[in-house]
Amino acid sequence: MSEPLGVAVLGAGHMGADHVRRLARTAGARVVAVADPDTERAGRAAAGIAGAGVHADALDALHRPDVRAVVVASPDAAHEEALLAAVTRGLPVLCEKPLAPDPRAALRIVEAEARAGRALIQVGFMRRYDAAYRRLKALLDAGDLGRPLMLHCRHRNVSSPPHFTSAMLIGSSVSHEIDAVRWLLGQEITAVTVVRPRPSSGAPAGLLDPQLVLFETDGAALVDVEVFVNCGFGYEVTCEAVCEHGTARVGDESVMVVRSRGGARQDIVQDYLVRFADAYDREVRAWVRAAAAGRLTGPGAWDGYVAAAVADAGVRALDSGRRVAVEPAERP
Amino acid sequence: MSEPLGVAVLGAGHMGADHVRRLARTAGARVVAVADPDTERAGRAAAGIAGAGVHADALDALHRPDVRAVVVASPDAAHEEALLAAVTRGLPVLCEKPLAPDPRAALRIVEAEARAGRALIQVGFMRRYDAAYRRLKALLDAGDLGRPLMLHCRHRNVSSPPHFTSAMLIGSSVSHEIDAVRWLLGQEITAVTVVRPRPSSGAPAGLLDPQLVLFETDGAALVDVEVFVNCGFGYEVTCEAVCEHGTARVGDESVMVVRSRGGARQDIVQDYLVRFADAYDREVRAWVRAAAAGRLTGPGAWDGYVAAAVADAGVRALDSGRRVAVEPAERP
Amino acid sequence: MSEPLGVAVLGAGHMGADHVRRLARTAGARVVAVADPDTERAGRAAAGIAGAGVHADALDALHRPDVRAVVVASPDAAHEEALLAAVTRGLPVLCEKPLAPDPRAALRIVEAEARAGRALIQVGFMRRYDAAYRRLKALLDAGDLGRPLMLHCRHRNVSSPPHFTSAMLIGSSVSHEIDAVRWLLGQEITAVTVVRPRPSSGAPAGLLDPQLVLFETDGAALVDVEVFVNCGFGYEVTCEAVCEHGTARVGDESVMVVRSRGGARQDIVQDYLVRFADAYDREVRAWVRAAAAGRLTGPGAWDGYVAAAVADAGVRALDSGRRVAVEPAERP
Amino acid sequence: MSEPLGVAVLGAGHMGADHVRRLARTAGARVVAVADPDTERAGRAAAGIAGAGVHADALDALHRPDVRAVVVASPDAAHEEALLAAVTRGLPVLCEKPLAPDPRAALRIVEAEARAGRALIQVGFMRRYDAAYRRLKALLDAGDLGRPLMLHCRHRNVSSPPHFTSAMLIGSSVSHEIDAVRWLLGQEITAVTVVRPRPSSGAPAGLLDPQLVLFETDGAALVDVEVFVNCGFGYEVTCEAVCEHGTARVGDESVMVVRSRGGARQDIVQDYLVRFADAYDREVRAWVRAAAAGRLTGPGAWDGYVAAAVADAGVRALDSGRRVAVEPAERP
Repeated sequence: MSEPLGVAVLGAGHMGADHVRRLARTAGARVVAVADPDTERAGRAAAGIAGAGVHADALDALHRPDVRAVVVASPDAAHEEALLAAVTRGLPVLCEKPLAPDPRAALRIVEAEARAGRALIQVGFMRRYDAAYRRLKALLDAGDLGRPLMLHCRHRNVSSPPHFTSAMLIGSSVSHEIDAVRWLLGQEITAVTVVRPRPSSGAPAGLLDPQLVLFETDGAALVDVEVFVNCGFGYEVTCEAVCEHGTARVGDESVMVVRSRGGARQDIVQDYLVRFADAYDREVRAWVRAAAAGRLTGPGAWDGYVAAAVADAGVRALDSGRRVAVEPAERP
Repeated sequence: MSEPLGVAVLGAGHMGADHVRRLARTAGARVVAVADPDTERAGRAAAGIAGAGVHADALDALHRPDVRAVVVASPDAAHEEALLAAVTRGLPVLCEKPLAPDPRAALRIVEAEARAGRALIQVGFMRRYDAAYRRLKALLDAGDLGRPLMLHCRHRNVSSPPHFTSAMLIGSSVSHEIDAVRWLLGQEITAVTVVRPRPSSGAPAGLLDPQLVLFETDGAALVDVEVFVNCGFGYEVTCEAVCEHGTARVGDESVMVVRSRGGARQDIVQDYLVRFADAYDREVRAWVRAAAAGRLTGPGAWDGYVAAAVADAGVRALDSGRRVAVEPAERP
Repeated sequence: MSEPLGVAVLGAGHMGADHVRRLARTAGARVVAVADPDTERAGRAAAGIAGAGVHADALDALHRPDVRAVVVASPDAAHEEALLAAVTRGLPVLCEKPLAPDPRAALRIVEAEARAGRALIQVGFMRRYDAAYRRLKALLDAGDLGRPLMLHCRHRNVSSPPHFTSAMLIGSSVSHEIDAVRWLLGQEITAVTVVRPRPSSGAPAGLLDPQLVLFETDGAALVDVEVFVNCGFGYEVTCEAVCEHGTARVGDESVMVVRSRGGARQDIVQDYLVRFADAYDREVRAWVRAAAAGRLTGPGAWDGYVAAAVADAGVRALDSGRRVAVEPAERP
Repeated sequence: MSEPLGVAVLGAGHMGADHVRRLARTAGARVVAVADPDTERAGRAAAGIAGAGVHADALDALHRPDVRAVVVASPDAAHEEALLAAVTRGLPVLCEKPLAPDPRAALRIVEAEARAGRALIQVGFMRRYDAAYRRLKALLDAGDLGRPLMLHCRHRNVSSPPHFTSAMLIGSSVSHEIDAVRWLLGQEITAVTVVRPRPSSGAPAGLLDPQLVLFETDGAALVDVEVFVNCGFGYEVTCEAVCEHGTARVGDESVMVVRSRGGARQDIVQDYLVRFADAYDREVRAWVRAAAAGRLTGPGAWDGYVAAAVADAGVRALDSGRRVAVEPAERP
């Protein structure tokens, strides 16, 4: 094992702090800098990590000489500047999704990476690292069940964070399904339609929650995604692939069944960091190895751009009540 | 227990023969006549039923003096004539769905019954008698989970019979869901949209199979029904109700888990007469009691008409690729 | 269908009243007499059954000229007299288990039937009519999983009735497993051992509950039965057969999964009449047909005797803390 | 993060090689030496680990100055010498179970550690680190289900390795349950009984497989363990705790359900390194942190000794066909 990879983590919120722990404990990297405008928060995240510097400014952290790779977990609006700086310095990046808040910004990032001439950006679509999703993909790729015809996806959260908007159900929550669909099927999404019932009284006033998002693909598959971010009872992400000769369903794992007054009960996890803990571990471990070796292999900037373009069409479909075609830019 | 109810069964196919057995064995009725143009088939169905006459002509059977009630299991096109005759004679009927092949014929039947002034026709929507569906309805009615927002329904058959058409996926298969949705929610369906992937190569050439049928209701609920009549692996009917405070799912029962080379396996039933055997028993038993008492209580002619009207809108939605509003006649 | 079978039901408690309903509604029999020393209770059970006489004395009911078959659901101590009278009259009987309260009485009944020269007694081991158990037996008989090595059985009740004794956990509850084991395996039980933890504080003081009852068979299979009659949460009867090439498990059916705050929950039935409702229906229907035809086919008096002999050995094993060999009389 | 912990891995078989990978990739340790008499095998295990020396002799590896901790994955017979040497040097050890091949050797190791005056040895009972077992323990400790009355355990392997003996079903396989029972219940095992059916024809001739091992505890709980090491279909480890007010069951996780011709199927893992991959990861990570901090916290030498003493009683119970009391030495 050579020298551990020196990593700067930009953003010390829920996700950023979790990445700091993960990099140090399970991925064998060396967190050398944590940046957050709230330096107290950055300090808490860096506590116990020997030699980790605390910075208020993301670019200061990124430009330290001991930084060889960057994790971007800052607010969406800050991604572009950080990514362009990292690309300029030639640093490999793991960027939490979304790549950027809108398709145009995402495309500028893709173009910058294209000019750099090599894959430097990985987007945090961690479902590609989940054991169940990988099993599903292997099964679909093997072809034993024939061509996939439909995917039925469910994406449920206990409750939405403050300031969550109707558009964010698609742009933030469903963006995971957008990437998962493209990856599982190896097909591109060509159109989006959004239909919905009257919103749940459990959702904040004005939030269109739940929604049923329909995707069509260039392989003539059909995908429906129930997104319900105030379902109240748990964090549930499931996917059922309906193929020509059978179906396969993932996402219902449970480790214990308790029988007591009231019936037989299985816990449902409440939080995505619990549900996908192993996936995050594998994602970060794989990225650390790939970054150290100089060749990223996970979902890249282009995947981040396409997800943004599809989500953008989805939001227009929600607003207009119509089917909206997805028309991405040409890949540089 | 008074004198057993004398019943004429019209039609001696798969379903009709099954009803003959059921009436005699588990419902305590007396099958006095079995009618089918194929009298050999009628004779086989009546074999072992002491005193059951065999008729080529349905109306001959229906007009026997010992007939006090009628089960209609003849081809769809023959329903109207038989139902009108039964209504004229004042005989209670259990009519296999659909009530009639099109909404206009169904409406004529409704009007005839209205003129007769009392409920004489029950339609064979046997899901209302399935233990799981009844449990689900009781739960929704209790209101503990809040208002239902969406229903996700799956209706899968191993393979479709010969001459099954794309329209029959809706008019024949989904008609069960149409009634179940109205009954479960206590709401009317107001619009239908049909989307679909490229058909499965496992389906006969030209058959648009599978389809995803979307219903909107006057209670602002949203329903999606996957109908896939050549899924190849089993007969599966499931329904997941997504409510404001939780979800409930029925249809996944299995009586045995076998662990052997290859994993843990649960059988899937291959046939609706097996899956819904108990529901058919309860339906026929309840109808026999109600017919003997002179007051039918199950889904009536109006429910049969509405199902036909919604299915008709569904077929137009499939043909046009558009959302089609459901506009039923006024109830007489 | 010929004239309905005239049946006398002896005993109008929980089970007897249920059988009255079942005979009339789903088995096509004619209940002509209900007997119970508590004639008010007998009257309630007979209410709504046209022409059913009410008797205080079981033998009076049994000797009516319109009685062609008898259901015995009276207290265990009353079985012998009723059974001997029915055998003398040549009437087919369905006798709730146990056949008799001890092996000697059971043997006298067997001998009386042997003198009569034909099978007249069926014992109410209704698991042989349960869909799941029948599927399991069919699988074991087919031999695909190889020779059965072990059965793991669970028999749990919410709470025990008043006056339930430690011996009754074996003699009453486990007697169902005794018959099921013999029927599933086609083997005889040769020895019994009983081990147990300190009793549950949820059980009445002095009741040795739960117990683990071990059976050895003449086919060298091993069976363990957890019997726990005050488990508090539901009525659960499961059986896992461990064979040379795989296992099969029955008894975990559930019709609905509800996801709400606290997790995903499946109801557990609270009562054996609910859990085995369909099995009781099939049992009684099959017995009515067989009785009308004059040839009983279900578990007979000998099976009732063997169950009593094994249970008796079990109680001695419980008392002594030792392995006790089962030594039944020779079959007459 | 301070300097990575330098670790010597003794034994480069299946388990040892796996530990080498795990230490380097997910536990942030530095493997400085791999020892195996088969140095080619040691070399393969060490390949790709920068700076890892290869040794034929375990003690040579252990005495390297850069070794600060030791993983013992050598054959059982070699454990004692390695452990005594490590204790003498004051090095923390993670020793694969069993601690030693017999209770006397295990006791000598306990005594050596006692003389050293601090906890230096952790035994590889990795179930304590499995997410499901931890959830079960947390539930039992919380006491919501009342006092545990019985544990039903299943331990099944696809097939046994060559030279596996009837005694090893207890000494090697069931040793995991011995530790899990003590840990889950916080109680000591006081007696063992072994009963069994005729061996499976799927087991090698002469191997008494399967067995049912019964444990009694000083808390008056009863434990049954089905151990079946040639079950043919998968690696299955389950545990159902039956408590006064309910039951809890772990070990049935499955990530995907496939419905296709033949039914609904869930994969069963074939290998313990797959089933318990995450548990091994957590175990080794926790041990690395504890070793670096100088205070081991996992199952210790005493736990290893007690497991050996109980297993020894179990083997005598198997041989004698009788209940054998467990009489461990006094704890030094």
